[in-house]
Amino acid sequence: MKHITILGSTGSIGVNALQIIRANPDCYRIVALTAAKNTRLLQEQIAAFRPKVVAVLNQAVALELKNRLTGASPPEILYGEHGYTEVATLEEADTLISAMTGAAGLVPTYEAIRSGKEIALANKETLVMAGQIIMNEAKARGVSIRPVDSEHSAIWQSLRGHPKEDVSRVILTASGGPFRNASVESMKNMVAAQALKHPNWDMGPKITIDSATMMNKGLEVIEAKWLFDLPMDQIGILIHPESIVHSMVAYKDGSVIGQLGVPDMKIPISYALSYPRHLPNSLPPLDFGKIGTLTFAEPDLQKFKCLDLALKAAQEGGSMPAVLNAANEMAVEAFLQGRIGFLNIPELIEKTLTAHRTRDIDSMETVLAVDKWARKTTERFIDGS
Amino acid sequence: MKHITILGSTGSIGVNALQIIRANPDCYRIVALTAAKNTRLLQEQIAAFRPKVVAVLNQAVALELKNRLTGASPPEILYGEHGYTEVATLEEADTLISAMTGAAGLVPTYEAIRSGKEIALANKETLVMAGQIIMNEAKARGVSIRPVDSEHSAIWQSLRGHPKEDVSRVILTASGGPFRNASVESMKNMVAAQALKHPNWDMGPKITIDSATMMNKGLEVIEAKWLFDLPMDQIGILIHPESIVHSMVAYKDGSVIGQLGVPDMKIPISYALSYPRHLPNSLPPLDFGKIGTLTFAEPDLQKFKCLDLALKAAQEGGSMPAVLNAANEMAVEAFLQGRIGFLNIPELIEKTLTAHRTRDIDSMETVLAVDKWARKTTERFIDGS
Repeated sequence: MKHITILGSTGSIGVNALQIIRANPDCYRIVALTAAKNTRLLQEQIAAFRPKVVAVLNQAVALELKNRLTGASPPEILYGEHGYTEVATLEEADTLISAMTGAAGLVPTYEAIRSGKEIALANKETLVMAGQIIMNEAKARGVSIRPVDSEHSAIWQSLRGHPKEDVSRVILTASGGPFRNASVESMKNMVAAQALKHPNWDMGPKITIDSATMMNKGLEVIEAKWLFDLPMDQIGILIHPESIVHSMVAYKDGSVIGQLGVPDMKIPISYALSYPRHLPNSLPPLDFGKIGTLTFAEPDLQKFKCLDLALKAAQEGGSMPAVLNAANEMAVEAFLQGRIGFLNIPELIEKTLTAHRTRDIDSMETVLAVDKWARKTTERFIDGS
Repeated sequence: MKHITILGSTGSIGVNALQIIRANPDCYRIVALTAAKNTRLLQEQIAAFRPKVVAVLNQAVALELKNRLTGASPPEILYGEHGYTEVATLEEADTLISAMTGAAGLVPTYEAIRSGKEIALANKETLVMAGQIIMNEAKARGVSIRPVDSEHSAIWQSLRGHPKEDVSRVILTASGGPFRNASVESMKNMVAAQALKHPNWDMGPKITIDSATMMNKGLEVIEAKWLFDLPMDQIGILIHPESIVHSMVAYKDGSVIGQLGVPDMKIPISYALSYPRHLPNSLPPLDFGKIGTLTFAEPDLQKFKCLDLALKAAQEGGSMPAVLNAANEMAVEAFLQGRIGFLNIPELIEKTLTAHRTRDIDSMETVLAVDKWARKTTERFIDGS
């Protein structure tokens, strides 16, 4: 029996995770849940899973949630950064599903590792911003970090049972997003509603825009670098619009092991929880006769500038990926608000990266300081654009 | 250092295996080689690998080989069934590559298992004819049977590191052979030269015809059943004309692990030798950007009668697969000699299967008796056709 806390239970990963947990009551029990502001859904989740503790964004949301809860024995309600961290480190839980969006997930996840929890990691920023610190801490505490992203889960599954020393490279697949076949000219005038239409995956708005710019894949490369302890030249990207091959590992003898599946986050989430088992879930089997065709192509780094910037930041290392991530969050937010155009996203990120002098990431304080600096700098560029 | 004997060193598997062995002199050493009649190539192999013992088909071939060997310290030359078995059980070898074509490989492979050799198995007939006996013997002797077929190697690799109990099914891929898109009408008049043109693999004539009839895939299903101890309803077949995905394993959570690679037998051969390592070989990496497209379709059992017959024989079990195999060998031989038409192959097999009453396979004597009966019976049907 795993005792589980979910950071970000009302997001798409959180909702899928709860479906798996609900279907396997003999394997999993919920200890705590957190959300930002969606008190309506959190209320339903509290009724269904009876967590001991919940945490939300701030005091106002906490009060709103409190007023919604009418049943007997309501959970303890915490809020704010401190509340999230307290929930992430609760003694009763042995496993944390880290599925908050954005940089806010970093500190609670770090503290959960320090308190010895197994981590099912969906929050990209944790490794992008602070990969070195996180992996060192996990190693020191004997904590395993299980990827929840479909790509990293695929790599993880494809590495199982095969010697790491024989890996020649890992190949992350990318759908190419909604603008795979769009011209750069047409991308200039794209508005949020168009970028939010992802062909294969049903995800939150931030990650869907990241998929449209392909920044998503750049962040995943940085995550893969840390998760699997690989140099950048052993990580490749392959466009695969059908999103059936979730990623692959090429070995030195020419053998390539890949993991395939329907594009449904329930597969990587349930594997992260049931590892090393592949416990049944409610998904239909992959029907290759119906799929018919799978296609592959090299990515276009000229067109997808965000991906190019991410690879360069990853190569540079140190604090550069944290700057990339912060600048991207700010730029995407500004795009979603209609303040900037689609092609301004990479422009703003590049400006911010150029304005930054790489530092070593030696502590969580440094990470947070760099993050803060990058956000301010990008915001200034947005205002000036 | 592995000390290796190859049964069938002048066939396509044998030649590929020797290339791998030559490239890794620190890992592998040849103890003995066998061939049927190709003394010219065997002579070259003897000069290059200095085996202690060799064996050939009969006394006449042995004499021919002896006359070719002029160098100092020539190997001991054995011949016939007894010679093959003696070579297969030589004390100096720890590993046997079983790559003879046809039923002749069965007894030497069986005796090698009994003498405790690790088996790299390319000979299909061993498991098709005597799967139960072979697997029981291997289990009793603590011998592992490592598949060399690309499909079984792919399944083996895709099972590594994942719990067997969580397998929902294995999916053998099939190129569909040269007649994948041919009409049944046109197949009627196919001659050997057309059937021998395989689109992806460069193999011997018997297996190439088996690929054209898709009997090959039927025999592989039977092998998979024994190698991986699976019921027939957990083994599926998928047409995949590009032969890049060599086979896959579907797990109960919807995750599918597959092994991919260029269609080159060096990959499964070298994995069978270097297992669990993926030691480098000279193959270029798989270039997905160049490949572009992979396609999949359900097999047509109406058109490929041989495959249908094989699946039915496998379902029936007992001595039926041995009869299928013997009838197929005779029919293919007759087709290659121009004695019968392409569509007579399944007709003759079906007649022989119908004439057979299933027996239990309780001993190697039973297997050989059934094999003999089936050959005679098919030969009689060929003469009468």
